[in-house]
Amino acid sequence: MSDEYILVTGGAGYIGSHTVIELINHGYKVVIADNLSNSSYDAVARIEFIVKQHVPFYKVDIRNEKELNQVFSNHKISGVIHFAALKAVGESTKIPLEYYDNNVSGTIALLNVCKSNNVKTIVFSSSATVYGDVTRFGDNSMIPIPEHCPMDPTNPYGRTKFVIESILKDIYDSDELWKVAILRYFNPIGAHPSGLLGEDPLGIPNNLLPYLAQVAIGRREKLSIFGNDYNSHDGTPIRDYIHVVDLAKGHIAALAYLKNLQSKGLYREWNLGTGKGSTVFDVYHAFCRAVGKELPYEVVARRAGDVLDLTAKPDRANKELNWKAELTVDDACKDLWKWTTENPYGFHIDNYSWENFDGYNNRLHSFVNGPLKVNLANHGALIQKVLLDGVNMVKAYDNAADFKDKSNPFFGTTVGRFANRVAKGQFELNGKKYQLTQNEGNNNLHAGFNGFDKQDFLGPVVKHKDGKFLVDFLIVDKDGNDGFPGEVEAIVHYTIDESSVGIEYECRLLSGEATIVNMTNHSYFDVSDSANIDGTEVKLVTDQMMEVDAELIPTGKFVANEYVTDPIVLDEKKPFDNCFIVDDDNCGIDTRARPLKKVFEATHPKTNNKFTVETTEPAFQFYTGDGVNTKGFAKRCGFCVEPSRFIDAINHEKWANQVILKKGEVYGSKIKYGFTKK
Amino acid sequence: MSDEYILVTGGAGYIGSHTVIELINHGYKVVIADNLSNSSYDAVARIEFIVKQHVPFYKVDIRNEKELNQVFSNHKISGVIHFAALKAVGESTKIPLEYYDNNVSGTIALLNVCKSNNVKTIVFSSSATVYGDVTRFGDNSMIPIPEHCPMDPTNPYGRTKFVIESILKDIYDSDELWKVAILRYFNPIGAHPSGLLGEDPLGIPNNLLPYLAQVAIGRREKLSIFGNDYNSHDGTPIRDYIHVVDLAKGHIAALAYLKNLQSKGLYREWNLGTGKGSTVFDVYHAFCRAVGKELPYEVVARRAGDVLDLTAKPDRANKELNWKAELTVDDACKDLWKWTTENPYGFHIDNYSWENFDGYNNRLHSFVNGPLKVNLANHGALIQKVLLDGVNMVKAYDNAADFKDKSNPFFGTTVGRFANRVAKGQFELNGKKYQLTQNEGNNNLHAGFNGFDKQDFLGPVVKHKDGKFLVDFLIVDKDGNDGFPGEVEAIVHYTIDESSVGIEYECRLLSGEATIVNMTNHSYFDVSDSANIDGTEVKLVTDQMMEVDAELIPTGKFVANEYVTDPIVLDEKKPFDNCFIVDDDNCGIDTRARPLKKVFEATHPKTNNKFTVETTEPAFQFYTGDGVNTKGFAKRCGFCVEPSRFIDAINHEKWANQVILKKGEVYGSKIKYGFTKK
Repeated sequence: MSDEYILVTGGAGYIGSHTVIELINHGYKVVIADNLSNSSYDAVARIEFIVKQHVPFYKVDIRNEKELNQVFSNHKISGVIHFAALKAVGESTKIPLEYYDNNVSGTIALLNVCKSNNVKTIVFSSSATVYGDVTRFGDNSMIPIPEHCPMDPTNPYGRTKFVIESILKDIYDSDELWKVAILRYFNPIGAHPSGLLGEDPLGIPNNLLPYLAQVAIGRREKLSIFGNDYNSHDGTPIRDYIHVVDLAKGHIAALAYLKNLQSKGLYREWNLGTGKGSTVFDVYHAFCRAVGKELPYEVVARRAGDVLDLTAKPDRANKELNWKAELTVDDACKDLWKWTTENPYGFHIDNYSWENFDGYNNRLHSFVNGPLKVNLANHGALIQKVLLDGVNMVKAYDNAADFKDKSNPFFGTTVGRFANRVAKGQFELNGKKYQLTQNEGNNNLHAGFNGFDKQDFLGPVVKHKDGKFLVDFLIVDKDGNDGFPGEVEAIVHYTIDESSVGIEYECRLLSGEATIVNMTNHSYFDVSDSANIDGTEVKLVTDQMMEVDAELIPTGKFVANEYVTDPIVLDEKKPFDNCFIVDDDNCGIDTRARPLKKVFEATHPKTNNKFTVETTEPAFQFYTGDGVNTKGFAKRCGFCVEPSRFIDAINHEKWANQVILKKGEVYGSKIKYGFTKK
Repeated sequence: MSDEYILVTGGAGYIGSHTVIELINHGYKVVIADNLSNSSYDAVARIEFIVKQHVPFYKVDIRNEKELNQVFSNHKISGVIHFAALKAVGESTKIPLEYYDNNVSGTIALLNVCKSNNVKTIVFSSSATVYGDVTRFGDNSMIPIPEHCPMDPTNPYGRTKFVIESILKDIYDSDELWKVAILRYFNPIGAHPSGLLGEDPLGIPNNLLPYLAQVAIGRREKLSIFGNDYNSHDGTPIRDYIHVVDLAKGHIAALAYLKNLQSKGLYREWNLGTGKGSTVFDVYHAFCRAVGKELPYEVVARRAGDVLDLTAKPDRANKELNWKAELTVDDACKDLWKWTTENPYGFHIDNYSWENFDGYNNRLHSFVNGPLKVNLANHGALIQKVLLDGVNMVKAYDNAADFKDKSNPFFGTTVGRFANRVAKGQFELNGKKYQLTQNEGNNNLHAGFNGFDKQDFLGPVVKHKDGKFLVDFLIVDKDGNDGFPGEVEAIVHYTIDESSVGIEYECRLLSGEATIVNMTNHSYFDVSDSANIDGTEVKLVTDQMMEVDAELIPTGKFVANEYVTDPIVLDEKKPFDNCFIVDDDNCGIDTRARPLKKVFEATHPKTNNKFTVETTEPAFQFYTGDGVNTKGFAKRCGFCVEPSRFIDAINHEKWANQVILKKGEVYGSKIKYGFTKK
């Protein structure tokens, strides 16, 4: 893979984010610069989730040449796709200076940095707005609109695009080594088919479909249709609606065209439209079909400045770029409806907020659901905090750096790809022997030196549904990491309601024939609201546990734990670090279909806080934290309950089926940690 | 006078500098911001010289919003005249990005700062270039060109002006409190009638008259006339040439118009042209008349892009602004020729350089003429250094701050308005008694606490003529300063040749009926190239000196100085601080018509350096520096020879005529300090 990057300015925006995905799908490496003034980093997090890779992101205003130049220093940039701009026509008439500053001065600054870094390939995000009212020619000679149509934008937004085109043209005229693609968009609609990305308009949407979508989910009362007395088949004006994914692909086509020019330069404009006009009613009906019901509308007076027909003539792009819009208005409506229902308020979710924990790669996410406040971080997809009515029930650091310190006893983290121990770090799979990192004496513990707990997860994708937060983190663990065979993708799916944090693990093989997987969570819980768990009353579902040797490796037998009473009152003289058996059956690689079983309960007479653990897993490690000795936390500051497969299962023939993940299969398990008052 | 300033961006440039002068002539206070990228601070120094007042200057690039904002914080700005821009059509096609960056981004940044400071009055320097080729209308409907002529600039420079007009229009449309005057210039020509300011084109001039001027002074061989087959009376194209002073006045008219709108806003364009077209030959002949001879030219092929006629229709400005161009092409040619002959290389003078000593108000100017290198500073119009073949012959500090320290024994400075002592600081003039600052015991010494030596002089105007540097500093000393009656203007005119530094003092009364003046220079000379002058051989023209009392106030008698031998060998046992009499006649207020008389000579056997003093003055103070005790310099580090009027002359009836300056008269005197090898 080339070490060259495409810089996408405004890559967190609506069209930008879709284009980044297409770029990556087409093998490009991408770096995003966005000032997030009118977009959300959540879009970038979701891009990473979709493309399953890290995409370098810089919160940079392109007007800041110094910071922008740093991006060029950090990455070898071979070309730029330039979206960053303010883009609302109406707003531009109210705050034109901001538009000229962001769009024009911003582009000039970007071009200064491009020039000083000898980057002369640029795809510019222009707009059909530059044509202005093409009905001014009277004779329909300019409908559908060809690229040679004279420009006469009628608002400041359009003028900023016009000015930038002029600047790029003058630069090309002064130095014909520049490769400049001007892409004039018609009406972008739709959303990413994944439902993860789409338009996120702030305030009242200006455009037909975003408005209609808000009517559909009840955010707006009814659609206003501005005039039904135009000379079209149904009386409403005709526009050229293009699916945002088609539009994104147009950028890839233009970029490829520029790259194919080799040493020759170019300045060229291309319309990106379908060439097919749709009336307002056409679009209305398509969206109603997607939603499955008729949506309220009202025909009102014509809107000043509206004209009958603004359809693109996309022949030049079709022919020269070998690109053609393929998706229909119906496709766009379907994708928009998916995006809207799954993200009714775009990226905004009430009672969810985040901050950089140590940068964008590791953010700290905070969720408030009734009495429960839960913090999760990208690093290890970990649980940093669970507050019940303000009382903390998990022990962990406040500081991102501390989590990376050697003395961190796996606070809150996701453990994987293989939890607990593998004897001597060795196992055999499909007749092949594997040697894992021996990071604890002779054995492999919690996957080694670079387990899931040491990595920043991608995402999360955060949604709110039926009163619950749904939070998905994703990790791609490379083939050979710590000796494990096969690349895997693992998803940690948190569900946060008013009284519990649910976790669902999923893991799939991306390369190779098989690997071994065993995932769990390593939080240190505490119901005592104090620095020490002693006095906590605990109930276990079982007293049966694995017999282990001196290195904590199972012998293959189960034994009873003598300390298990009903309830156990925790006491430092009776420490636990044992794997208790929920059932000894052949649970298979995916336990999720099994019913959740309550395996653990803890309360403390002082607080009346109650903690429970339910799981689909056949075992759980119960650890009273006697080995903890770290910044701010001493031994027995919390206890761990880690539902999982049997320890070292791969090296015991009868248990091995629990942990062997084969190509095409899915590893799955569920845990539900409950936090309530007694 | 209002405390409100007009900010003039690009105020050091050709049109900007002329406009600043007109603004001040019309009673405005002005602050200049200029990045000096294509202009010279010398223009500002000359503006100050012409208007006889300090004009705040900031070397600021308008793109630097932070620095620009500081200007708005330091001064209450009520309006902006915005010139700052790159302005060469041809260059703009080669480096368009620089043009957009400087002109467009620069204006956007300026407008951001205006907006945040609630300054909404702006006069914008646009250009007839925005109209493009108006012959495109075919039917001459747009010649002469009216403001409603559609814009279609044909080069990046013109497009930057067009874009900025659009931005200002959009801003006005968004907020009708803005007052925006767009001034579209036709062809500015000429120079300031003082000969001190004019166009200073870098490289080969693009325009007719600057080119012709360089032909006239021999910098270029001949003028090329591009085509003589146009349909005009002599076959050459017709343009509308406007005298830069008329143009400058147009800005004052536009600003006044905006101010008169009171609370109403406006966006309005005005052509600034004469309405009268002149052909290339018309202008050529006018300039030849100004020069007094026929200049070589050659008719060559037409130039691409040239058209027959671009004459302004200035009716709108004539009527609405009550402004009309009054000067002719002949006037402009005359002024241009004066500017050119007096400043053949514009502000550039070989072997002259300057640096900020403590800012632009006090610069250190360096002149190299053969073996002599002389440094002068604005502070006190002082002589900071005289090097003969690299050997320093005056003692003074290297650091500007030291000159302002109390221990400074008047190193190098101009002394005025009244040198030496006034007994008890008292005198009577026209029957009125005056009390001056008593800054030395009972007496006034060297004018008091705020004499010329404590002030920064304006200018200098530097010229080079007949092998000599001519350097003029100017000071305006307020009525009542240190108790002196009447405002005076004093000019210190230095002439630096290969062996001497000449000084001519001029002083005029600006207010009141009479004052007293006595000026001299207080340099500490040394021919020994050492820290002590002892051993220096000195010849004086006379041994007659003033008899003084214990406070060094003359008794009215002359006596012989017992130490005067031929030569005197300086010796610390025989210190001098005496006023020697050159002649006792009634010299009058202006001695400049009298022959220079050699009054002093000093050599040192070790160096063979020779120092001489010639003067038109009737006396000189000879001081061997026995009281010096300052940073880096001890007593007898140098000696002073200060030609002047008689000490305390005003209080001696028979001498008083030497120092009384009446309204309409000129105080004048000359000194010539010679620096040679024996």
